[in-house]
Amino acid sequence: MHRIAVIPGDGIGPEVIEQALLVLDKVSSKFGVKFEYIFVDAGGCAIDKYGVPIRDEDLELVKKCEATLLGAVGGPKWDGLPGNLRPEQALLKLRGGLKVYANLRPAVLYDELKDSSPLKKEIVSRGIDILVVRELIGGMYFGPKGREVKDGDEVAYDTEVYSKSEVRRIAKVAFEAARKRRKKVTSVDKSNILESSRLWRETVEEVAKDYPDVALNHMYVDNASMQLVKDPSQFDVILTSNMFGDILSDEASMIVGSIGMLASASLGEGRVGLYEPIHGTAPDIAGQDLANPIATILSAAMMLRYSFDMEDAAKAIENAVKIALKEGYRTRDIYTENCKLVGTKQMGKIICENI
Amino acid sequence: MHRIAVIPGDGIGPEVIEQALLVLDKVSSKFGVKFEYIFVDAGGCAIDKYGVPIRDEDLELVKKCEATLLGAVGGPKWDGLPGNLRPEQALLKLRGGLKVYANLRPAVLYDELKDSSPLKKEIVSRGIDILVVRELIGGMYFGPKGREVKDGDEVAYDTEVYSKSEVRRIAKVAFEAARKRRKKVTSVDKSNILESSRLWRETVEEVAKDYPDVALNHMYVDNASMQLVKDPSQFDVILTSNMFGDILSDEASMIVGSIGMLASASLGEGRVGLYEPIHGTAPDIAGQDLANPIATILSAAMMLRYSFDMEDAAKAIENAVKIALKEGYRTRDIYTENCKLVGTKQMGKIICENI
Ligand SMILES: CC(C)[C@H](C(=O)O)[C@@H](O)C(=O)O
Ligand SMILES: CC(C)[C@H](C(=O)O)[C@@H](O)C(=O)O
Repeated sequence: MHRIAVIPGDGIGPEVIEQALLVLDKVSSKFGVKFEYIFVDAGGCAIDKYGVPIRDEDLELVKKCEATLLGAVGGPKWDGLPGNLRPEQALLKLRGGLKVYANLRPAVLYDELKDSSPLKKEIVSRGIDILVVRELIGGMYFGPKGREVKDGDEVAYDTEVYSKSEVRRIAKVAFEAARKRRKKVTSVDKSNILESSRLWRETVEEVAKDYPDVALNHMYVDNASMQLVKDPSQFDVILTSNMFGDILSDEASMIVGSIGMLASASLGEGRVGLYEPIHGTAPDIAGQDLANPIATILSAAMMLRYSFDMEDAAKAIENAVKIALKEGYRTRDIYTENCKLVGTKQMGKIICENI
Repeated sequence: MHRIAVIPGDGIGPEVIEQALLVLDKVSSKFGVKFEYIFVDAGGCAIDKYGVPIRDEDLELVKKCEATLLGAVGGPKWDGLPGNLRPEQALLKLRGGLKVYANLRPAVLYDELKDSSPLKKEIVSRGIDILVVRELIGGMYFGPKGREVKDGDEVAYDTEVYSKSEVRRIAKVAFEAARKRRKKVTSVDKSNILESSRLWRETVEEVAKDYPDVALNHMYVDNASMQLVKDPSQFDVILTSNMFGDILSDEASMIVGSIGMLASASLGEGRVGLYEPIHGTAPDIAGQDLANPIATILSAAMMLRYSFDMEDAAKAIENAVKIALKEGYRTRDIYTENCKLVGTKQMGKIICENI
């Protein structure tokens, strides 16, 4: 029996989570394992209900679960609120509270979806299979920040701060992951300008010594943003900070064609994990059975793999997704000519049947 | 008579500057204006010669000139040096010393070079004509930074800091520029996380009130990095911070096909300006007559426009570049089948002849 905190969130969150839970139910019966779902409000819906992005008692509840599956939080409705009362604050509290410092974001180009990439055929045909390893509970997101009046001028600041031990532990995750892949780590920083990046680079070099079988190169973040578009096939594992990882992982997700396909896992020590699709709440299509549930379903697969050590079940889900794509089923975001257009629910059902 | 500080710098810097000066000489005789060139060492070459990225007396000399034309600085040779002794420090000192807070980076897709873009035809055919307006002397680049040992762990930090007055002056530049273009400003920030971004967004909204004829929208930086690849035609002027601008302007330059084509102007109050190509020193091709001099030549055109109010001469240069491209002349970086491959010098000569 595994206890899972389930956070549907806002916008399309509840719809895609619903399909992911149906998939987990199918896994449950197929693999003889029980899941208990603890539903928790977080994000805009929690602000509406309780006046805060996530209640302290709910955060405690989540911490007691083995893993967390999250839909998406936020939306324009809550954009005007002050910083500490915004839906995104729930994400930061969850990430920080669960101490999940390693955000794994695979950006993989599915053969069936090659036409959805905005990049030219010549570039895409070399293949794209990138794992972004993003530090998730440090840097500018969590460093000291504030606002003050100085000589009559308002001033606001955020601090990008990293310690050697923080960099070391995320670097290890990247090198370990690379070992199971194509054995290449590209560490992205801005060490020609930032002190924190110089510490980052130094520390990554130190960690690299323990992984002589993995090739390491360094890249400035501005160059990385170009290289991702120019030749994404050059990347295997990209290791980077919270802020740069936010930008580059979104860019990577766009070049593979659909952000509606991309899952993520945020891991800490032990088996704790927070699993969520990379996409946002897409308020414009919420409640219309249009959202692509695959990213969330694949996030559930990552949960089985990393938190419950159920590699077979994870593979079964991933395989079921591939079959659905091969058979031509597409939600609107990945639809191309001659495919079969389906809604959120039907896509979930088809994937369930393929397990 | 105009006094211009000329900083060739490292790698391909001297070669591309040489061609830009020949173009200026041609302008000089054609338009009956005199230029005096004051050559200054900065970057790696200054480190080799004097032990510092730029000498104080040289910075003073530059400040006394009306405008500065810079090739490129830096290279792997000097990468191991401590922060304050790196070639890039010369750039920061020049930008900060000249108080050029507004970095204008046009990313334009030339009809003749459409095939060089990594993006699909369907996307590129909508056209790309973006002006990135990047704040250049604030944010993480110039904020307090340091390194210390805390509880036995090494910690390094950089501060992203912006004041209302800093944001206001750069926002004005963006809105003024948009007025002369397609009247749209996209302000890019990370206001769902950063205090400095919230001040940024607020202030941009305030400035926008003075420009009711210009449309303003806001975009998170992670989303912007996706949208640039998905549909660059949606952008007119992108207004953003120093750090985000570094990343996004490089991404924008890549999607138009060749960074060897892109110029930049960094402006302050009055007519002071620092003009440089967007590309780097490209040490791998330095000294081989392979570099594309167009970005530097177009930077010289920007100098004539913004610092010397010589719009006709600027247009004449830009036109001469277009003719060279139309006639099929290409340096290696922009070469495609059936074009005429030329080197740095020949490209410069052809452009001169077209003026
Ligand atoms: C919603 C936002 C706070 C979040 C982030 O910046 O981390 C999102 O963009 C992400 O990447 O998960
Ligand atoms: C060389 C480097 C310091 C510089 C920057 O980051 O500003 C460069 O990337 C640029 O964009 O002009």
